[in-house]
Amino acid sequence: MTSSFHPPVRTLMGPGPSDVNPRILEALSRPTIGHLDPQFVALMDDIKRLLQFAFQTSNELTLPVSAPGSAGMEACFVNLLEPGDKVIVCQNGVFGGRMKENVERCGAEAIMVMDDWGMPVDPAKVEAALKANPDAKVLAFVHAETSTGAYSDAHRLCALAKEHGCLSIVDTVTSLGGIEVDVDGWGADAVYSGTQKCLSCVPGIAPVTFSPRAAEVIRNRRTAVQSWFLDMNLIMGYWGGNTKRAYHHTAPVNAMYALHESLIILEAEGLQASWQRHALNHKALATGLNAMGLEITVDESHCLPQLNSVAIPDGVDDAAVRSQLLNNYQLEIGAGLGALAGKVWRIGLMGYGSSQKNVLFCLQALESTLAGMGAKIHTGVAAAAALAVYAD
Amino acid sequence: MTSSFHPPVRTLMGPGPSDVNPRILEALSRPTIGHLDPQFVALMDDIKRLLQFAFQTSNELTLPVSAPGSAGMEACFVNLLEPGDKVIVCQNGVFGGRMKENVERCGAEAIMVMDDWGMPVDPAKVEAALKANPDAKVLAFVHAETSTGAYSDAHRLCALAKEHGCLSIVDTVTSLGGIEVDVDGWGADAVYSGTQKCLSCVPGIAPVTFSPRAAEVIRNRRTAVQSWFLDMNLIMGYWGGNTKRAYHHTAPVNAMYALHESLIILEAEGLQASWQRHALNHKALATGLNAMGLEITVDESHCLPQLNSVAIPDGVDDAAVRSQLLNNYQLEIGAGLGALAGKVWRIGLMGYGSSQKNVLFCLQALESTLAGMGAKIHTGVAAAAALAVYAD
Repeated sequence: MTSSFHPPVRTLMGPGPSDVNPRILEALSRPTIGHLDPQFVALMDDIKRLLQFAFQTSNELTLPVSAPGSAGMEACFVNLLEPGDKVIVCQNGVFGGRMKENVERCGAEAIMVMDDWGMPVDPAKVEAALKANPDAKVLAFVHAETSTGAYSDAHRLCALAKEHGCLSIVDTVTSLGGIEVDVDGWGADAVYSGTQKCLSCVPGIAPVTFSPRAAEVIRNRRTAVQSWFLDMNLIMGYWGGNTKRAYHHTAPVNAMYALHESLIILEAEGLQASWQRHALNHKALATGLNAMGLEITVDESHCLPQLNSVAIPDGVDDAAVRSQLLNNYQLEIGAGLGALAGKVWRIGLMGYGSSQKNVLFCLQALESTLAGMGAKIHTGVAAAAALAVYAD
Repeated sequence: MTSSFHPPVRTLMGPGPSDVNPRILEALSRPTIGHLDPQFVALMDDIKRLLQFAFQTSNELTLPVSAPGSAGMEACFVNLLEPGDKVIVCQNGVFGGRMKENVERCGAEAIMVMDDWGMPVDPAKVEAALKANPDAKVLAFVHAETSTGAYSDAHRLCALAKEHGCLSIVDTVTSLGGIEVDVDGWGADAVYSGTQKCLSCVPGIAPVTFSPRAAEVIRNRRTAVQSWFLDMNLIMGYWGGNTKRAYHHTAPVNAMYALHESLIILEAEGLQASWQRHALNHKALATGLNAMGLEITVDESHCLPQLNSVAIPDGVDDAAVRSQLLNNYQLEIGAGLGALAGKVWRIGLMGYGSSQKNVLFCLQALESTLAGMGAKIHTGVAAAAALAVYAD
């Protein structure tokens, strides 16, 4: 007979899932009710309103997709695209590449705008691509690249899309709650996120929002959305407006309790306060790392405070460090992904995990581990340097 | 500021989600760890083995899709079908219709075999359709129709598919754990289920299994799977074999804890014992309902013990009864769906909810509610009739 699984208690400072607030774990385990229960329907309305708050939007079509962030990405592409459409896709990390895969699987054409990993998307290149492709329907880009730790100027990119008559699709998986996401201010058309990053909720759900213009495009498609599960025309019948809720699929009820709890925690803190907290803890971590002699690989002008890519010092065994941190400190930091595998560690300071306690713990665990392996770092100075940031 | 959501404690006797075992809710709230954590990878292996046990299969490609049952259905169709393929789809309720939608959204053709709602799929009609369409690639049918409460002869239907060189896709969302599901014995090729029925787990995850023959078809496709998120060629890299786990999407870690707990509960009880318990509680409920003067609309020869469709007596207000049960007893029973809306109630006795306590509670609440509304039923006899079944 198989035994119950009792996970170790880790500190999650990788690229996500991030440390989950215990309040959210408790909410998750509340008694399950039906997905058409009047009280669940009222909860859905609450979640919708709270997501509008988090995304800073009045979009009516704002809801959580019942699947992880990748499915949120797919929901945006399959609903807006039809075969033969042309999409300008910006790639400056792993997730732009995934966007290309999504475009092509819709029978659409992806025009790639490439930037170096760790750099933001270059608006000049995007403008050139928009001019060269006046028939493009959509501009797609990643606001916060989880694979590199760089963010791009979403306001400028969405404005360029609009100037050239394009819809915009924006990935805010890692940004939502950690840095400013301003869907209406940007004029973005389709935006998706995930629960397991700066919302500090369990992984598995993808908040999405569509502008009225995008919703109109979805309603007036020539062809059916290729995914039944992600078809917003059907999902609107369950999540939408004032009409009777029509059964589409069985909502992940308990995950909705958790998402709701994570959003009220964000509401209580306030968006500005949350962004400031993320910025402060990033500054403390970066200062401590620099004092130790380690470098963040992304320039401060476009560095995500919630995801810090740290160059692995020469001669240091990447996997051995991560493995020692996990085994000796129960601390998870992230490996590099794609082109950055073996070159960087990704240290997350997301949501509930963006705290002074985690900053100090990570610095001390990393310092002790690297020193123990004979790496050439400055010891005994990182913690004080970080603490000085908080004292300012 | 928004308040936390504290759901009422319901008894869930609808078509699912069913009552969740408290052990599973507790497992759900255990601390989140990373989706590439060595301990999580070990848990994944355990889940895979336990799903093989539940499905009665040795299929290597057996895993939980990170989304609800509808996505499990879609995973089977989008992976096996390519544009232009022909599929024989059996429809005897809502979910056969959803299969047709899936087939058409793959650019494939659906040949429908229709049976009356509440009747099983007729193997003679299926055989005729297979003979008339020698170029069909797949036979798809629902083992346990959640919309009607009828089950079909999966063994016979899968054998017919094989005789005619077709792959089979089988919906076992409501059957898994409640009646016999024998994937290898049937020779089924792609089978999907859900967590929120007889596994008594929270909704949101879809166990699937693919035969070696189906896996071969997936590996040798001419075209890419239209869904990136559900592409088994990619998912195999995360869930598959002995190789290093490649990141695909962030697994819903806590939902995996819950699924694991639900499967070890099933393992400890044993498949046969679970089926017998479902059969016994169904018999007691049916006997009590009959004593009251109510009728189950599906013939006993193909009636699902876990989902009982009860004819709404003439003159009785469907919605008022369900609403009184919910408000006065915190008891949820299901409404009719599709063609059966307003004609039947669907009373679930699934997994943890298939218990003597729930049978007696439901009979008494229904009797009292109907009597209070002046319905012509026999009172004071149902509970004793049900108890006599247990005493046998």
